[in-house]
Amino acid sequence: MNPRVLEIETSLIRKVAAKRREGTIDLGLGEPSLRPNPDHFAYAMRYIEAHGIRYTANAGDLLLREAIARHYDYPGMTDATNVCVTTGSQEAMYVTIKTLLDPATDELLIVEPTFPSYAKMARLEGIAARGVTMSEGDDFAFDAERVVAGIGERTRAIVICSPNNPTGRVLHAGEAEKLVSALEARSGEPIWLIHDEIYREQTFVEDEAFLAERYPHTIVTNSVSKSNALTGLRLGWIIGPESFVENAIKTHAWLTSCTDTFAQQVALHIFGELGGINEHVSWYRAQWAGVVEALETSRMHYIRPEGSFYACVRLPQGVKSYDAAMQLIEERNVLAIPGVAFGDAFEGWLRLSWVAPLDQVREGIKRIAAYVKEYV
Amino acid sequence: MNPRVLEIETSLIRKVAAKRREGTIDLGLGEPSLRPNPDHFAYAMRYIEAHGIRYTANAGDLLLREAIARHYDYPGMTDATNVCVTTGSQEAMYVTIKTLLDPATDELLIVEPTFPSYAKMARLEGIAARGVTMSEGDDFAFDAERVVAGIGERTRAIVICSPNNPTGRVLHAGEAEKLVSALEARSGEPIWLIHDEIYREQTFVEDEAFLAERYPHTIVTNSVSKSNALTGLRLGWIIGPESFVENAIKTHAWLTSCTDTFAQQVALHIFGELGGINEHVSWYRAQWAGVVEALETSRMHYIRPEGSFYACVRLPQGVKSYDAAMQLIEERNVLAIPGVAFGDAFEGWLRLSWVAPLDQVREGIKRIAAYVKEYV
Repeated sequence: MNPRVLEIETSLIRKVAAKRREGTIDLGLGEPSLRPNPDHFAYAMRYIEAHGIRYTANAGDLLLREAIARHYDYPGMTDATNVCVTTGSQEAMYVTIKTLLDPATDELLIVEPTFPSYAKMARLEGIAARGVTMSEGDDFAFDAERVVAGIGERTRAIVICSPNNPTGRVLHAGEAEKLVSALEARSGEPIWLIHDEIYREQTFVEDEAFLAERYPHTIVTNSVSKSNALTGLRLGWIIGPESFVENAIKTHAWLTSCTDTFAQQVALHIFGELGGINEHVSWYRAQWAGVVEALETSRMHYIRPEGSFYACVRLPQGVKSYDAAMQLIEERNVLAIPGVAFGDAFEGWLRLSWVAPLDQVREGIKRIAAYVKEYV
Repeated sequence: MNPRVLEIETSLIRKVAAKRREGTIDLGLGEPSLRPNPDHFAYAMRYIEAHGIRYTANAGDLLLREAIARHYDYPGMTDATNVCVTTGSQEAMYVTIKTLLDPATDELLIVEPTFPSYAKMARLEGIAARGVTMSEGDDFAFDAERVVAGIGERTRAIVICSPNNPTGRVLHAGEAEKLVSALEARSGEPIWLIHDEIYREQTFVEDEAFLAERYPHTIVTNSVSKSNALTGLRLGWIIGPESFVENAIKTHAWLTSCTDTFAQQVALHIFGELGGINEHVSWYRAQWAGVVEALETSRMHYIRPEGSFYACVRLPQGVKSYDAAMQLIEERNVLAIPGVAFGDAFEGWLRLSWVAPLDQVREGIKRIAAYVKEYV
């Protein structure tokens, strides 16, 4: 068998989540607890009734590709040819990494802490990957100088998840400008930016940066999973310059042929509706306000969430995050994700999601605060 | 960019199919023209209304995995742990090849003529692939001796598509027995068999062989695409020994995370219904009888279809299949796929699909016969 497959380990997140039981307060969830809007499904069903469910083109339904390109309206990326529809943002990122980087020569730079899948995808492809860690003293804020200092000779692409999982930090306009200026000042082949925008509709600051608006060598991955409570639909996309997208389509065609036609019709209805992609924004804003208040009251050290649906709290000095998460689920029946699941740089932190009903989130935060207090 | 992606060429099949126009008799189609059974969709909609559409486990919904394992009932592969649900059989085959073979040492042997995607997937993964061609003099019947003679020192897996695309040949029990005996008589690490069963429900002989019933080191890929006219649903699966499937699930998890929950519910309804996977079998049998009669009447040299929904006809000596396909679509408005799209060994042949309404298939065969006659 392929040795790169054999070496993949079971996810730490799943090990902790497996302890979930009756009555657990679940702050481990990585998906919305909201229900999706049934109108989108009704629209897709009418389509299937009228047309059956045939293959679309490899790159996706032309109308959907056009709708996505028009909605985001990134400079130089406004046509159907700038979009490839994928099986969720997971395949979007996988196809992007596999297409963009030559395993023989190139390196992927990953801005950390972040979701572990980028590094694991690269490893499965035999592509060199290296992390550049934001400063813990600055609550892991995106710092362009650090990112630029992390660029090595072989770096050909930099992946940034903003709003970030797990930190909840957002790339601000000022830092994005510094990063882009530094990249544009370089000579030789341009370095690509890969912007994972999966939490775009959960942003709680005003000056968030969209790299594709600022830098032509940007590739964006996203999906309707988080924005519309459609994680199980597996409908994502890649947006980028046509020269890249036409190659990404080839990779995608061999991996999965094309994306589910039903799911594409659901997405077409979302992008056809004015504000469809934003339909859950007000719910998230209300949750966010409640969570920030509960965290403030808890007197724990936490990272003020600027985006995504996570909040991170600092454990007492010397407490291992995996041990803490295990004690919390076993002794206090509250599920939180240990920071170490996002790499050593995030050891000592817990990631709490706040998509459960607000009273449960509040109760969970209380129990964690009580746990932390016992150490102080 | 990844040089292995850059070298992928546009599919010949798509080049010819792009010439389709108003009134074309389309014998190029690779998907059923039947409509799917709406009951399956109604069931999935009820599920979504009750539960939303959350992620399933990476390997798929447990009930669906159990239902698939039970339905096929392959020895040693009867549990959920023997099944991984995928984004169509395309991802099933991709994950299988990527998981099973070590690019550094292993070679994939492909029984040809066959669909070009196996070789292209291997090339994209940097895995050595070699074809072993069945005998044209024997109308490309599966021949175990030829397959065994094709095994090289580095061969670790053999892929067989039966019923076959494009030839319509089926692997018979006698040949399967010979192949399995030869593999079992070998010393050292076993060679794996990968059986692409995508046309399983379009079989028109009585002694077709299912390799997983005969040989423990078999991996099966399949989907509901062809059996239930659900090509656009992208719902497939891998069945195999647990030791392989647990690794395949890891590859699948990083590629696409999990398969569409809605599509999995559609499939659960199909496998829950008695005979659900066979619901279109009688339609295919009727089509098959009509096609065989039309081919017999045409007096062309054709391969009697034993399975799949293709029939292949021999072009006059010296006529290139790509030129013939282009002339047929341009001058006679009938679309057929040139044999060369399936490799040099199938040059001089045309593949006709027969999923269009029978009167159109008959008219298309007539036009092709008239074209062929002009050369004689």
